[in-house]
Amino acid sequence: MSSAPITPDAVADALVALRERAPLVHAVTNYVTAGFTANVLLAAGASAAMVDNRDEAALFAGVADAVLINLGTPHDTADVYHAAARGAQEAGTPWVLDPIGAGGLPWRGALAAELLQYRPAAVRGNASEIIGLHGLTGDDGPGGRGGQGRGVDSSDDPADAVPAAVGLLEWAGAVSASGAVDHVVSPAGTTRITGGSVLLTRVTGTGCSLGALVAAYCAAAPDVGLAVAAAHTHVTVAADVAAERASSPGSFAVAYLDALHEVSPDEVRRRARLEHDA
Amino acid sequence: MSSAPITPDAVADALVALRERAPLVHAVTNYVTAGFTANVLLAAGASAAMVDNRDEAALFAGVADAVLINLGTPHDTADVYHAAARGAQEAGTPWVLDPIGAGGLPWRGALAAELLQYRPAAVRGNASEIIGLHGLTGDDGPGGRGGQGRGVDSSDDPADAVPAAVGLLEWAGAVSASGAVDHVVSPAGTTRITGGSVLLTRVTGTGCSLGALVAAYCAAAPDVGLAVAAAHTHVTVAADVAAERASSPGSFAVAYLDALHEVSPDEVRRRARLEHDA
Amino acid sequence: MSSAPITPDAVADALVALRERAPLVHAVTNYVTAGFTANVLLAAGASAAMVDNRDEAALFAGVADAVLINLGTPHDTADVYHAAARGAQEAGTPWVLDPIGAGGLPWRGALAAELLQYRPAAVRGNASEIIGLHGLTGDDGPGGRGGQGRGVDSSDDPADAVPAAVGLLEWAGAVSASGAVDHVVSPAGTTRITGGSVLLTRVTGTGCSLGALVAAYCAAAPDVGLAVAAAHTHVTVAADVAAERASSPGSFAVAYLDALHEVSPDEVRRRARLEHDA
Repeated sequence: MSSAPITPDAVADALVALRERAPLVHAVTNYVTAGFTANVLLAAGASAAMVDNRDEAALFAGVADAVLINLGTPHDTADVYHAAARGAQEAGTPWVLDPIGAGGLPWRGALAAELLQYRPAAVRGNASEIIGLHGLTGDDGPGGRGGQGRGVDSSDDPADAVPAAVGLLEWAGAVSASGAVDHVVSPAGTTRITGGSVLLTRVTGTGCSLGALVAAYCAAAPDVGLAVAAAHTHVTVAADVAAERASSPGSFAVAYLDALHEVSPDEVRRRARLEHDA
Repeated sequence: MSSAPITPDAVADALVALRERAPLVHAVTNYVTAGFTANVLLAAGASAAMVDNRDEAALFAGVADAVLINLGTPHDTADVYHAAARGAQEAGTPWVLDPIGAGGLPWRGALAAELLQYRPAAVRGNASEIIGLHGLTGDDGPGGRGGQGRGVDSSDDPADAVPAAVGLLEWAGAVSASGAVDHVVSPAGTTRITGGSVLLTRVTGTGCSLGALVAAYCAAAPDVGLAVAAAHTHVTVAADVAAERASSPGSFAVAYLDALHEVSPDEVRRRARLEHDA
Repeated sequence: MSSAPITPDAVADALVALRERAPLVHAVTNYVTAGFTANVLLAAGASAAMVDNRDEAALFAGVADAVLINLGTPHDTADVYHAAARGAQEAGTPWVLDPIGAGGLPWRGALAAELLQYRPAAVRGNASEIIGLHGLTGDDGPGGRGGQGRGVDSSDDPADAVPAAVGLLEWAGAVSASGAVDHVVSPAGTTRITGGSVLLTRVTGTGCSLGALVAAYCAAAPDVGLAVAAAHTHVTVAADVAAERASSPGSFAVAYLDALHEVSPDEVRRRARLEHDA
């Protein structure tokens, strides 16, 4: 697989492409953060539809430009996730797996692992989720451990999730572990994205909506590794801008949506702090 | 059917009536925009309850002042929609149908068409949804076409939906196609409402919450055509005010809720841009 | 049962403990206000996870620091509520019942009454819900009446709910009726908390998120009566601060989240208006 270099110029170009394409993301996600996720997609320049019922989920995976499957609030919905993922695979629509809680909740971890069979373009999670999901694929043998997450929060550092992320490349085109420093792993190597704000952890849905934005970029960028890095860079720069305007979570969330919308390709290029190890 | 004239004075009077009556809207709606919809109703001067379970949906249609049925995220819930709509019809409670996605998703389009049997006071949708829903009633014969929507977005112009809206008057008291220029069709003719902001398309739930506000006005205004026009005018004026205060989607959403609350009947009268063809 | 005195000093100390402990609240709640509830918990200093499926709800009640069960949008979920409440009781995790709508909706009122068997640490509701729930326990005999709520709104005054709250102490460690003046009843007596803003009634989820914050405080404060009073005081002071910054509901909601985060123990101590009758 050839791959695009992951540079400030390349992520800025991906932002231009995102806004030109305005991809429609079919988000099969949780009810807690669905509204915020839609607002993040709209602010960033994409579009959103949540079509998560048995009768339409698979069909719509062939209509949309990208699909997100986020396991934040599974109910009796395993068949819907399978239908959406299979529908995306069959239609050739890129899809992203966000294995919320796979770090600490075995039942949904197993569900997330099953979905890897449909070959997601990308997996995005926090460090505990990436470690936990990888452990469930059986690849790390008897010495493997689950992630140390507690519910939906991570207790692991993204850097420690890199080996698990590399292992998951057997299933996915790229894998990211989000956190204080985001780590994006693809066949081209590992990219570290620095910046953002601790206030991101005081607003619900910043991780979930990032997963959706990864899906949007997968429909706009020429390469999945670049797409994932560009999505993380977009939100990191927006959070940097928002943190300059607001210092408490209510006003930070508003400023963050504003900044996702306002940030120009030039600003992304100038502010991006990317380190790449091939 | 006699009908009230649809004028700036009449919509301003309807706003006074809305705030005096503070109607309780029983909103059977989608999970993505339910919170925003409740906030719009509360900001505008109404009240909201989402009672969308099998055991209470019909009963509550007789308790509330108005009912909204929005098909944004149907699951195995066709019976709930039927129960709420039938309950509203039997209790004489005005109800509004918001056929989200009927423009491009056949399964839910058929569901929306079935609900017309309970005679909604009003139908509100984007142009593709109105065209699609009308096509499904069979009224336009073999030459009829479905709406050109893609998921929940419209690809049609509201003006082009007027014939479909007129056709739907067989089932509903008034029909609106929302968009850059809103078109409200009732037995009294067609009203065009100009204004608003493109930022309304960058905030999720502005359409869904408008449907809920139409329901609230149906419980407060003397005539359904006026009610629908008054709801559209209220949100259009609020969006105009918000766009003077904010230029990005996060802060626009906040300013929009503020403006729905603050806008006075005089301001509505002064700012309303209505054109009516009898 | 010994109990801590409920004073401005004690609620300020409870706030310090909340932020040190950062309790994870397992919120089995409604979809309308789940996002806002998570944001309130995060802003206040706690953490949130909504794990409301059959396969994980009971297990997670033993992982989390506190559990909220809010009956805002019950579907076919009675078994999930039972599992979460029973799981909390068995694990010794404090749990809070928020009997949304028990004042006016008999079906869910009965469901709420059933859950009392698992002995909640606290019950929080509006006055109609507390009166309605108590009436359903059968304790008030043939003269008992249900609450006068209409859907999720209260038509009763919190002071009038005190006898019902006292009756519910047979089942719960403390009971609060929220409203213009919040009334918290525990074996130590009745505490009245004055302040807040009428704008709290123009933002959806302020009551629901208060219930979640009560759960968080139950995991941090030394005594459940104090925990409930501290949660109500925290939100009341935050609303007072927010009302000084904003006068319309959109910006008030933002300022409220900011203030929940910013308010210091000293500010709580200084602003708290508590009256306690032993």
